[in-house]
Amino acid sequence: MPVTVLFAARPDRWAHYEAPLRSALDATGLDYDLRTEAAPETVDYIVYAPNSAVRDFTPYTRLKAVLNLWAGVEGVVGNDTLTVPLTRMVDDEGLGQGMVEYVTGHVLRHHLGMDAHIVNPENRWDASPPPLSRDRPVAILGFGALGQACARQLVSLGFPVRSWSRSGHEQDGVESFSGADGIDAALSGAQIVVLLLPDTPATRGVLNARTLALTARGAAIVNPGRGPLIDDAALIAALDSGQIGHATLDVFRTEPLPQDDPYWTHPKVTVTPHIASETRPDSASRVIAENVRRGEAGEPLLHLVDRGAGY
Amino acid sequence: MPVTVLFAARPDRWAHYEAPLRSALDATGLDYDLRTEAAPETVDYIVYAPNSAVRDFTPYTRLKAVLNLWAGVEGVVGNDTLTVPLTRMVDDEGLGQGMVEYVTGHVLRHHLGMDAHIVNPENRWDASPPPLSRDRPVAILGFGALGQACARQLVSLGFPVRSWSRSGHEQDGVESFSGADGIDAALSGAQIVVLLLPDTPATRGVLNARTLALTARGAAIVNPGRGPLIDDAALIAALDSGQIGHATLDVFRTEPLPQDDPYWTHPKVTVTPHIASETRPDSASRVIAENVRRGEAGEPLLHLVDRGAGY
Repeated sequence: MPVTVLFAARPDRWAHYEAPLRSALDATGLDYDLRTEAAPETVDYIVYAPNSAVRDFTPYTRLKAVLNLWAGVEGVVGNDTLTVPLTRMVDDEGLGQGMVEYVTGHVLRHHLGMDAHIVNPENRWDASPPPLSRDRPVAILGFGALGQACARQLVSLGFPVRSWSRSGHEQDGVESFSGADGIDAALSGAQIVVLLLPDTPATRGVLNARTLALTARGAAIVNPGRGPLIDDAALIAALDSGQIGHATLDVFRTEPLPQDDPYWTHPKVTVTPHIASETRPDSASRVIAENVRRGEAGEPLLHLVDRGAGY
Repeated sequence: MPVTVLFAARPDRWAHYEAPLRSALDATGLDYDLRTEAAPETVDYIVYAPNSAVRDFTPYTRLKAVLNLWAGVEGVVGNDTLTVPLTRMVDDEGLGQGMVEYVTGHVLRHHLGMDAHIVNPENRWDASPPPLSRDRPVAILGFGALGQACARQLVSLGFPVRSWSRSGHEQDGVESFSGADGIDAALSGAQIVVLLLPDTPATRGVLNARTLALTARGAAIVNPGRGPLIDDAALIAALDSGQIGHATLDVFRTEPLPQDDPYWTHPKVTVTPHIASETRPDSASRVIAENVRRGEAGEPLLHLVDRGAGY
């Protein structure tokens, strides 16, 4: 009898996940039946998103595990009808690589001044090339695994890179700073600033009126880290004064970004919809399939949620 | 007596060149006088652009050499009043690095779908991430020094890269093709195509109705190579049919691109003003200053033009 796997997420996600899930499940060699609808008593595993229609797990009498598609489980961990193991998504492969691509792409976009060519209603032909990357200092605030990976790529492209982090981690080709004074040195004269800090009491509002004044005039801000790292009113004031030339923001205090948020219409702001560090269907599907395989083989599941701790 | 160096180019270039030229000339240790106007009989060297106002070199009785700012010398090599050595610009450092930055930046721009975020008047929040680079095949047509350097960067970012060239040059991580059949294999299923071929009778119109049909549907074209590589009518037809999703073009049969050219207003075309392989003021200034130093030291000049051959 095949292993029945129910895909329970928003219907639009199925188009993204069906092929990679089948491909990953095929690779396990299991006899499986992957579907978006099934009689509850026939289901062995649920591939789950907390915004799906499935809220009551009681009818799923044969269920062996719920495999969450998201890193966050706060929408399901407290569900009293869930009595089987719950796993969360840990997609290092997709998250880290996606972040490097996003950061490198948007740093190059600002460096090359692409926007003036993408939107050029007056057909201006201004053949002044941008400076080379070696003349464009980039500051990366936050230097964990993601910041380090982004820095490696930017260094290989020729950018002078400074980093600032709590630990002061050092890396070839990167000027490393730490501590309260360090942020001033890292930001001083930076033309592009990338935020990859965690959201902690110490990092909230790290980009504020004082620190935004340290960059080169007209610097670009790229924030794929956390929304609260930025004092939003200070950033808008710095954009309006010209101290900051552009901000590309992927994360916000409220998401999706409310329609009346001033960032949407500010001419110097690009909003991206929290895509820099999104779980990717192909790598996430491999994590899901591996857990189905483990479940069938009686091996411990990966990324099991401690329901007492809540994550 | 200082060495008098006349800067004879379009007036708007002075703002870009003055500081880097002074810095490079300072580094030679020479006593020099750099100016945009000078009595002709006082001038030792002319830093020259063929579109400058200086056309008659006869009054420059003390002139030791004309140092062309451009790689192309066709606008000066036939000037009968020029009787002193002429050098052309060879700016490998600026040209090659600039090309890598341009190609990597625009490949990432298309890969990440940035344009939909840069221009988003309806404030759409569509949190579908792009695929990862490993699922985005890139074809590079033309695999000389520039193509190879771009490929190294794209491979390090995770893109599957195919190349097509006359020689079939091989490189780590790149699937190499050559010959008439090879172009079909290189383009087949490619989602981003980068043109870096030289302009020769064999490469003119290499992207045409037949070859444009080989790519993945909706592929992006990036052309920082040469304008005549593309059959323009075929490209516009492929954009209109949806076979090609976008074209970013830096070079054209006529430059500046005429205001009535359909590329300017096509919604799926980005025009960049021949900036991908532009000489950079800082590296070009170092080449100029080195030649002034050599001239004063009686050493052979770099990149001397063979006026008989014409280049």
